[in-house]
Amino acid sequence: MALSVEKTSSGREYKVKDLSQADFGRLEIELAEVEMPGLMACRAEFGPSKPFAGARISGSLHMTIQTAVLIETLTALGAEVRWCSCNIFSTQDHAAAAIARDSAAVFAWKGETLEEYWWCTERCLDWGEAGGPDLIVDDGGDATLLIHEGVKAEEDYEKTGKIPDPESTDNAEFKIVLTIIRDGLKADPKKYRKMKERLVGVSEETTTGVKRLYQMQETGALLFPAINVNDSVTKSKFDNLYGCRHSLPDGLMRATDVMIAGKVAVVCGYGDVGKGCAAALKQAGARVIVTEIDPICALQALMEGLQVLPLEDVVSEADIFVTTTGNKDIIMVDHMRKMKNNAIVCNIGHFDNEIDMLGLETYPGVKRITIKPQTDRWVFPETNTGIIVLAEGRLMNLGCATGHPSFVMSCSFTNQVSTGIGGIAICKLIG
Amino acid sequence: MALSVEKTSSGREYKVKDLSQADFGRLEIELAEVEMPGLMACRAEFGPSKPFAGARISGSLHMTIQTAVLIETLTALGAEVRWCSCNIFSTQDHAAAAIARDSAAVFAWKGETLEEYWWCTERCLDWGEAGGPDLIVDDGGDATLLIHEGVKAEEDYEKTGKIPDPESTDNAEFKIVLTIIRDGLKADPKKYRKMKERLVGVSEETTTGVKRLYQMQETGALLFPAINVNDSVTKSKFDNLYGCRHSLPDGLMRATDVMIAGKVAVVCGYGDVGKGCAAALKQAGARVIVTEIDPICALQALMEGLQVLPLEDVVSEADIFVTTTGNKDIIMVDHMRKMKNNAIVCNIGHFDNEIDMLGLETYPGVKRITIKPQTDRWVFPETNTGIIVLAEGRLMNLGCATGHPSFVMSCSFTNQVSTGIGGIAICKLIG
Amino acid sequence: MALSVEKTSSGREYKVKDLSQADFGRLEIELAEVEMPGLMACRAEFGPSKPFAGARISGSLHMTIQTAVLIETLTALGAEVRWCSCNIFSTQDHAAAAIARDSAAVFAWKGETLEEYWWCTERCLDWGEAGGPDLIVDDGGDATLLIHEGVKAEEDYEKTGKIPDPESTDNAEFKIVLTIIRDGLKADPKKYRKMKERLVGVSEETTTGVKRLYQMQETGALLFPAINVNDSVTKSKFDNLYGCRHSLPDGLMRATDVMIAGKVAVVCGYGDVGKGCAAALKQAGARVIVTEIDPICALQALMEGLQVLPLEDVVSEADIFVTTTGNKDIIMVDHMRKMKNNAIVCNIGHFDNEIDMLGLETYPGVKRITIKPQTDRWVFPETNTGIIVLAEGRLMNLGCATGHPSFVMSCSFTNQVSTGIGGIAICKLIG
Amino acid sequence: MALSVEKTSSGREYKVKDLSQADFGRLEIELAEVEMPGLMACRAEFGPSKPFAGARISGSLHMTIQTAVLIETLTALGAEVRWCSCNIFSTQDHAAAAIARDSAAVFAWKGETLEEYWWCTERCLDWGEAGGPDLIVDDGGDATLLIHEGVKAEEDYEKTGKIPDPESTDNAEFKIVLTIIRDGLKADPKKYRKMKERLVGVSEETTTGVKRLYQMQETGALLFPAINVNDSVTKSKFDNLYGCRHSLPDGLMRATDVMIAGKVAVVCGYGDVGKGCAAALKQAGARVIVTEIDPICALQALMEGLQVLPLEDVVSEADIFVTTTGNKDIIMVDHMRKMKNNAIVCNIGHFDNEIDMLGLETYPGVKRITIKPQTDRWVFPETNTGIIVLAEGRLMNLGCATGHPSFVMSCSFTNQVSTGIGGIAICKLIG
Repeated sequence: MALSVEKTSSGREYKVKDLSQADFGRLEIELAEVEMPGLMACRAEFGPSKPFAGARISGSLHMTIQTAVLIETLTALGAEVRWCSCNIFSTQDHAAAAIARDSAAVFAWKGETLEEYWWCTERCLDWGEAGGPDLIVDDGGDATLLIHEGVKAEEDYEKTGKIPDPESTDNAEFKIVLTIIRDGLKADPKKYRKMKERLVGVSEETTTGVKRLYQMQETGALLFPAINVNDSVTKSKFDNLYGCRHSLPDGLMRATDVMIAGKVAVVCGYGDVGKGCAAALKQAGARVIVTEIDPICALQALMEGLQVLPLEDVVSEADIFVTTTGNKDIIMVDHMRKMKNNAIVCNIGHFDNEIDMLGLETYPGVKRITIKPQTDRWVFPETNTGIIVLAEGRLMNLGCATGHPSFVMSCSFTNQVSTGIGGIAICKLIG
Repeated sequence: MALSVEKTSSGREYKVKDLSQADFGRLEIELAEVEMPGLMACRAEFGPSKPFAGARISGSLHMTIQTAVLIETLTALGAEVRWCSCNIFSTQDHAAAAIARDSAAVFAWKGETLEEYWWCTERCLDWGEAGGPDLIVDDGGDATLLIHEGVKAEEDYEKTGKIPDPESTDNAEFKIVLTIIRDGLKADPKKYRKMKERLVGVSEETTTGVKRLYQMQETGALLFPAINVNDSVTKSKFDNLYGCRHSLPDGLMRATDVMIAGKVAVVCGYGDVGKGCAAALKQAGARVIVTEIDPICALQALMEGLQVLPLEDVVSEADIFVTTTGNKDIIMVDHMRKMKNNAIVCNIGHFDNEIDMLGLETYPGVKRITIKPQTDRWVFPETNTGIIVLAEGRLMNLGCATGHPSFVMSCSFTNQVSTGIGGIAICKLIG
Repeated sequence: MALSVEKTSSGREYKVKDLSQADFGRLEIELAEVEMPGLMACRAEFGPSKPFAGARISGSLHMTIQTAVLIETLTALGAEVRWCSCNIFSTQDHAAAAIARDSAAVFAWKGETLEEYWWCTERCLDWGEAGGPDLIVDDGGDATLLIHEGVKAEEDYEKTGKIPDPESTDNAEFKIVLTIIRDGLKADPKKYRKMKERLVGVSEETTTGVKRLYQMQETGALLFPAINVNDSVTKSKFDNLYGCRHSLPDGLMRATDVMIAGKVAVVCGYGDVGKGCAAALKQAGARVIVTEIDPICALQALMEGLQVLPLEDVVSEADIFVTTTGNKDIIMVDHMRKMKNNAIVCNIGHFDNEIDMLGLETYPGVKRITIKPQTDRWVFPETNTGIIVLAEGRLMNLGCATGHPSFVMSCSFTNQVSTGIGGIAICKLIG
Repeated sequence: MALSVEKTSSGREYKVKDLSQADFGRLEIELAEVEMPGLMACRAEFGPSKPFAGARISGSLHMTIQTAVLIETLTALGAEVRWCSCNIFSTQDHAAAAIARDSAAVFAWKGETLEEYWWCTERCLDWGEAGGPDLIVDDGGDATLLIHEGVKAEEDYEKTGKIPDPESTDNAEFKIVLTIIRDGLKADPKKYRKMKERLVGVSEETTTGVKRLYQMQETGALLFPAINVNDSVTKSKFDNLYGCRHSLPDGLMRATDVMIAGKVAVVCGYGDVGKGCAAALKQAGARVIVTEIDPICALQALMEGLQVLPLEDVVSEADIFVTTTGNKDIIMVDHMRKMKNNAIVCNIGHFDNEIDMLGLETYPGVKRITIKPQTDRWVFPETNTGIIVLAEGRLMNLGCATGHPSFVMSCSFTNQVSTGIGGIAICKLIG
């Protein structure tokens, strides 16, 4: 898409796939409201007092129907909101259209390139002269990362005159981040530091983002307060577990129509997400094998009647592979080429580095056949057999289906709203 | 759609939504072949001997990817094939396109009107001068019904000169059947009797169709041999049970994205289909209540920890209602207007008379809001609350999702192929 | 025990372990009545008309609390009853005591020798001058077998003067049967033929007994009418399935206290009994592997997420083995000596020939350590590791626990009562 | 039993039911060792270095086969051990016999009176001239309580000359505690203070005991270090959850033989214990209703498809009631008299105050019929219907069955051993 900001008749900025889907989005938002009692209770309880009056909130979180209800809860409580998605495939375009038309500045569409993705993130944080948001709702920490990298570059530049060099990294995505910061530096060498100054803090939605934050905290690199929403019981023990139990089979079914019953399914990782995935697959009639490096989680899997094995032992026998670890390099191309014909490989962890997509794409002679968007068959030259990779290794429930259902996201997002209210309140107290 | 038959370059007739989807259909057919070992084994075992050489097969059965593999198994065994769907919403257009382009005469698309539906059925049975098919693969018995009604009308006409009068019935669909027969009578007053003469027999796929056949057999009305495929263990104890266990949640998720966990779900009927549906809903975290008039099935539900109650007792408390009975008038408009706001009402039984759609459509002041195709919200004027009806009361798994997955349909369809081979063989023996 | 018949003060014959347990038995019978609505409804509906008035019923069926409620239902309907158990370990002594004291002639105790077992069976059939019972309630067919073998021997004797020779067979148990018949022949050479003449018929309770009867019917050997109670839906789809789902873990727990969660359990056979056992073990947290020779049952196991393998492949890896096949020679000593230390081996099929107890007992150097009655550890000399065998290879749920619970036995036994009423009624009609 | 200490030939003190059961206990201990890899690994790893050399350990924890393996692990690591049970019904007499004969001083038997129970506790803590134990392994906190109450009384006595008055309390059990302390005061007015001085600390096994300790810590009343073993993941998320999932149905089956399938079961409390109980009952085919005051736990129950209701709403409809709350006064006599005939009422929480036994026992006209030990039917005069109460309201899995199985207790007890090793080590460090 051409990367130019558009404006509604009221002057609000946006960039979405198709604004004409706004009516459809509105209908589904209205259905979702009935399923999100936590958020609606926030509107009823806090709407009148407008605790977010005057607050600017930037969100980098899957731009779905459920997120639309969150955004409109934030605006109902007085906030001004800008939003982008935290995954290139996770936007529901009708949700984005409805919000763009009716409620907030949205920069998101399903199937962004990485360049587009970071352009959207930048737009989301860009409050013009106001300098930046008061609060960030982050999911995975990309918005937080951009500000931190921006501040670092600005300080380097101020001290040494050095501008960020995209060629200094091999990581394709980080090249883009550096490019954005470099280009921003020229326009305003204090941009990210102004953001940092203004920020009350960030509330982080997911395990992976929280891990990043704890690492930054340990090294002293964390620049502003961060609230760990993920580890709230009503988030991680619900969203991660019951959300994935719902949306994993949903993604499998929409992407492949494959019968789960009778299959051998490997779930890599048996944390909350893995527990939800394993439960779903087992209940659907698959035989589930777990890979796990944590002995306690492994023992829990055994207590539920699941076999625990190293991936190597089952790689050529299983039909479905799901990564849920939050770590990288779980399923490598060397695993993939040993798999059965039409084995399904997918990831439901936050980032797309659990499956070795680079290894797959660069495997000599490999052939990619796109069955439909987010469902690709990759054929290896030696065997002429293929594997089916979902959502290009990214979050398959959001890439191939519509993510977690409204009710469980209401549990999660009610934490976000409470966190935001609390953050603002503390800030006012402190002055 | 304009009801005119089109022809491929090779001269084969068809009528589908969009022939350009044939490549996509072919890709998914190829995936399905890997999941349908029964049919592929039939090709391997019987392909060389071509038991269907010279046989004409008409099929009235959901025109899905799985059915495409069945059709191409029939043609691989030597048959010439014409096909239509047995449900106005169940066709997968890319499957129809691939078959129309590559393998057989297809008359089917997703979202037929009833007039279009019966036009397709007639086309499917119309083998031109050959007079009719040698075998019918029927699902629900509509092709069988058309021939029986046609023969009856022709005989009446021959004896009394009376032609069928569409106005003699209140049933909207039967009006159309009579119209088709009436119009056919004029062109060829022996058309259906010629079909009957040629026919080796029909193989019937589903419980509902089988019930119809037994009723005809009892009254002596059955005009040709019929083989009950449904009651094969590898059909009804697999397809009905495990197929629905898979495709019911699939349909619910695609149509509504609703979280099943935590909901109260009512399954009307606890036969094989009901057992599959109840298992799926229970495993997904719903609390399932069963309605059942058969005491043995009711006791089975109790043994599985399900509550058994009359529909009346739970109508205003439940969130999801599924009819699976094979009987009519299960959920009436009087039930629907007492339901909770946004209660989901759907049917996974063969015919669309389990839910009182006529009563709903004609309810004074009712308002229909189409969320998306096959997902409608109906708002009652008294309460201004609505219910969500899937697939207009028709088979929701085929209307809102893609039906049963390949593996279990391979079990079912292998019975169809065996049945056909047996029927032809017996016929040759008898001469 | 000394094999002498005792008599109550009212003159009714019996032989039980300890009549002083009658009060305890009565208390548990009263609890069971509340759980057996089918039998109690029979008493309410048919008690007043006494359809069994004048009828003599002999039963060879596990003498448990539940059977006690069956016996007292038969007597409430007018019958005179004699009873024995159909398994040497299945009697509950307090149940036998209560019935012996209050209601019927009972010959049964927990832990009979085989000689005692057949003595009890003979007593049960011995109605003195009356010649024999009008009805037999049989479970596994031992009473039926005794009469058939007796008639055969009497006819042989009459024709040829030859008396049965126990030494003509290698089978230890059949030796005893022949001895009993031989001894009976001397006293009354028409005993079993008189029984046969009087008999209205037998109602058979279980799959194994039914198979025997069909075999006799096919060869023309069956001497009197037999009614297949087992294949009633309310028997085999409840008792076999849900009964075993309950009583298999009960037997395992009482015998071994072993944690089922986390174990690898092998269920040999996936019929109704196997399905119940596999469900119980899976739900308790075991990983269940099924062995099965029927491809349809094997496919059902796969659809439930169970692995299907030959026994040989898992014999040294599994922790618990259960035979449910109704066939013989399932787990042989050669399997057992390869098992893990303290692997548990048990049988829940009707007869004790599924596990190669003879092979085990005669294995050179094997050592038997009785942990407690019905729980033995057998140590192999090569490895000095042992396996734990329950109930000496006999029905472990009755040997190690108390068998199926009352509610499901009410379903089964109500069939027995109905069958008996019907048999008597037809007999009267015919005259 | 006569409360006199006996001595083995080696001079070790004990008081058990029947020392002749030691061989049987030894056989089961040997089986349990195979199932307790954690404890056996402790013996292998720490046995040679004898970290407990010279340490005196007193344990107040169910004297079962599993505990026997714990005790012999402690002695294998060098400890001298004295033991009592922490529940009047939980001792397995053969386990106690084996330990008394072979390994440690044991004062425990199944079916103690409360006087006997506290006599045993006192004996367990009484190390003669040594003054007291170095470590206490406590389960529920009774040993800890006795020392605290003892110290308090001694200090009061020293200050004011006042001796404890058993009549100062209405609580029957606390009367006994005061009596013991009073009698001890006369013999040695520094007894409990010497114990306190010597003690390195207590490791507490269960939720209830931990709550008591936190309360004491908050008020400053806690006299010595305490380690919370319960909240170790490998304890509370295994023992409480999977242990109860196993032993709840075991207790129900042994006590009542009742069919769980088809029943309505109420689980009061949905913590770890409640989750395990609810899972077991649901899987066995019951319909489970949860009562819960914590909204998050209640929502978890809903996500698993369980109904959540106040006890009052289901009291007359359910068949089985289990208390798991750790709180008191959960099921009152006023609930019990409204229950269905033969409803089963039992408790699996640590203490016996969840069920209002006093209210039941003193209900005017109530009649108690003991079916067998630990299984009583209580008949109300108004209705002449009864309820069945297990283990007199105490831990039913230990009272009516044999408690949690070995494998999961190995997880729990390995924490106890590690804790003890750590406690001693720290103590040595500190000096």
